[in-house]
Amino acid sequence: MTLESSQQGVIAGSIPLFAGHPAPELLPAAGFRQAAERLMRGRAASRLFNYGDERGDPRLRDYLVERLNRCESLGIRRENLMILGGSTGGLTMLCDRLTVAGDDVLVDAPSYRDALHIFRDRQLRIHAVPIDEQGILPQELERTLQRLQRQRRRPKFYYVVPTFQNPSGITMPAERRRAVIALSQQYRFAIIEDDVYCDIRFDAAPPPSFYALSGGAEVLRLGSFSKTLAPGLRCGWLVARRERIAEFSGSGMLKMGGGANPFTAALVAEYCASGAWERHLGWLRGQYRQRRDIALTALRRFMPPGVSWTRPEGGYFIWLRLPAGLDAADLAARVQARDVYFAPGSGFFVSPDDGTRYLRLSFSFVPAADLRAGIEILAEGIAEMAAG
Amino acid sequence: MTLESSQQGVIAGSIPLFAGHPAPELLPAAGFRQAAERLMRGRAASRLFNYGDERGDPRLRDYLVERLNRCESLGIRRENLMILGGSTGGLTMLCDRLTVAGDDVLVDAPSYRDALHIFRDRQLRIHAVPIDEQGILPQELERTLQRLQRQRRRPKFYYVVPTFQNPSGITMPAERRRAVIALSQQYRFAIIEDDVYCDIRFDAAPPPSFYALSGGAEVLRLGSFSKTLAPGLRCGWLVARRERIAEFSGSGMLKMGGGANPFTAALVAEYCASGAWERHLGWLRGQYRQRRDIALTALRRFMPPGVSWTRPEGGYFIWLRLPAGLDAADLAARVQARDVYFAPGSGFFVSPDDGTRYLRLSFSFVPAADLRAGIEILAEGIAEMAAG
Repeated sequence: MTLESSQQGVIAGSIPLFAGHPAPELLPAAGFRQAAERLMRGRAASRLFNYGDERGDPRLRDYLVERLNRCESLGIRRENLMILGGSTGGLTMLCDRLTVAGDDVLVDAPSYRDALHIFRDRQLRIHAVPIDEQGILPQELERTLQRLQRQRRRPKFYYVVPTFQNPSGITMPAERRRAVIALSQQYRFAIIEDDVYCDIRFDAAPPPSFYALSGGAEVLRLGSFSKTLAPGLRCGWLVARRERIAEFSGSGMLKMGGGANPFTAALVAEYCASGAWERHLGWLRGQYRQRRDIALTALRRFMPPGVSWTRPEGGYFIWLRLPAGLDAADLAARVQARDVYFAPGSGFFVSPDDGTRYLRLSFSFVPAADLRAGIEILAEGIAEMAAG
Repeated sequence: MTLESSQQGVIAGSIPLFAGHPAPELLPAAGFRQAAERLMRGRAASRLFNYGDERGDPRLRDYLVERLNRCESLGIRRENLMILGGSTGGLTMLCDRLTVAGDDVLVDAPSYRDALHIFRDRQLRIHAVPIDEQGILPQELERTLQRLQRQRRRPKFYYVVPTFQNPSGITMPAERRRAVIALSQQYRFAIIEDDVYCDIRFDAAPPPSFYALSGGAEVLRLGSFSKTLAPGLRCGWLVARRERIAEFSGSGMLKMGGGANPFTAALVAEYCASGAWERHLGWLRGQYRQRRDIALTALRRFMPPGVSWTRPEGGYFIWLRLPAGLDAADLAARVQARDVYFAPGSGFFVSPDDGTRYLRLSFSFVPAADLRAGIEILAEGIAEMAAG
């Protein structure tokens, strides 16, 4: 998602609470530059420039395998991991490999808007299952699965952002994850676990991943450097069963182009190997925690009665529900006049009408003062609408 | 294509005549590093790291528009061009946007192996049309089109490497291109013009592109820095009608991930803006011309009677035909024992049997001495086989 396209109206002085971007001033540009210069001047420089292994930079793979085993207890080996051109590159590859037009897939309601866009582009039939504050409702999921089974249809995968979800900020607890895994095995669908926010945790560690809980069986776990290092590098990874990694890395796309972005992946490996990324992560969590706290304080202080919101324990997003009868699209039009922008909820639902009362606030991108001011303006807009 | 996967058996001391890679020692690593360091230390550094415009780095787009108008007389504007993650990223995107599984597409026989692989992955029906030394035979193409029309099928596109083709090295003259364009308009299919070798010309400039000849109507022109700057950067471009660029850059994939590789594209822009790429191109043509000449001289000197080959005016490849009754797969097994590797012709045909007498030699990757020695070993192998 780019600023330019998401909101044409953004100009200097505006408050873009819609942007699910890292704050530019929190990206470790200087540290990354040092690593890049070190590698480009070193003996391995020529390796940076030619085609790479289909599964991606070997050094970055080794680093990630070690880290994921240490921090996420995944118990994986090198054969379980490949480097991607961001989690986007991974999601499009997984759609290519797992689906054809007309296939069924499962998502949360609400779910990540740009993922829905990708599924629509591919003419997939998207079935949205309601969530509560703990994520997808297993009974509702099973109802959907039974309905599809009666139609002799089998969904190819369930796509989920399980931790600090985009857009709601909620995290699915382990028990709920286990219930979904049991259904995935009974009804034979894959789980695409898009866990790009899990490293931005403010308090306790998030629950074990779907991959860890299932022992890897048909869970395709996506990770990314976009939220914690730099989106512009387009660097992420996929963890999966070794047979799946072998199958995916044998695709024509990877035979033709080689692995994802060999040049940037090698630079990322150099940066990570120095320990700089993990040091940066510790600092970054504090920075985003501070922004989350500022946002929650401002919400408590300014929001009129009848408005409710989530209290995310990590990530970038707060999900707000308006009082009955108010429409987030009207609010958007109203606050736009005061240069405040947010993402109305409709875009995150397969049936847009389900989202009219909701909006997503990103606390990641704007500085503290703007965050506070933006929420105050939002609250005033809601109060005015409520007053009729 | 990576060395590792294309030929597991490659070890130090071998002669990999199969590798369609630029020679590592001919990549302008030092010049690119200087540009990268300059940009990363400059004021625009923060722009390198965040999400980018869906159509790619604006500065690189402007540079390419100016250059393509100057050197290829395309008459395009900024709205006609988007940056890609290599021509591979472009070809997969075009398949996503133009086809669904089961659709028909047209290719040359022989055609680029990894493109065929991508089409097979997507379960497209691939119709291969024979070529002569001037490329696709228009009468044969029309016959295929008529056959499809009788079945009420319309191919979605014709995929072609028109200049210094991979694998044959041949170039389609303007007249032949015009005939294909006329058929594309009559039978309403797009032309994907994968022209990644056109800047590596040894003699005269190649004929006008399909894009230039058609005025852009439903020609999708792919270009790349992989063959002349560095494949590891994964940076290429697409030229098309403005409506097409608008449509493609509105895809879910680009909304989610932003434009192709913002970090590397910005570095490439910096490198190009200094004039370094065009200076490098002039030098590079001389280097590859020399390798082509060494290969042709060795072929004339060593090959037994009954072997014929193409004389490419640019690019990386020579296409060799064995005497009747000899099989390139047998030759591959025979010369492998002497550490020489090449790409047997079968892989470049939809019907592998059509390719048994052919082989592709890459003169781009191996140093001059190895090129000569490898061709001598090949010639000895052929002579032995011919002698029974």
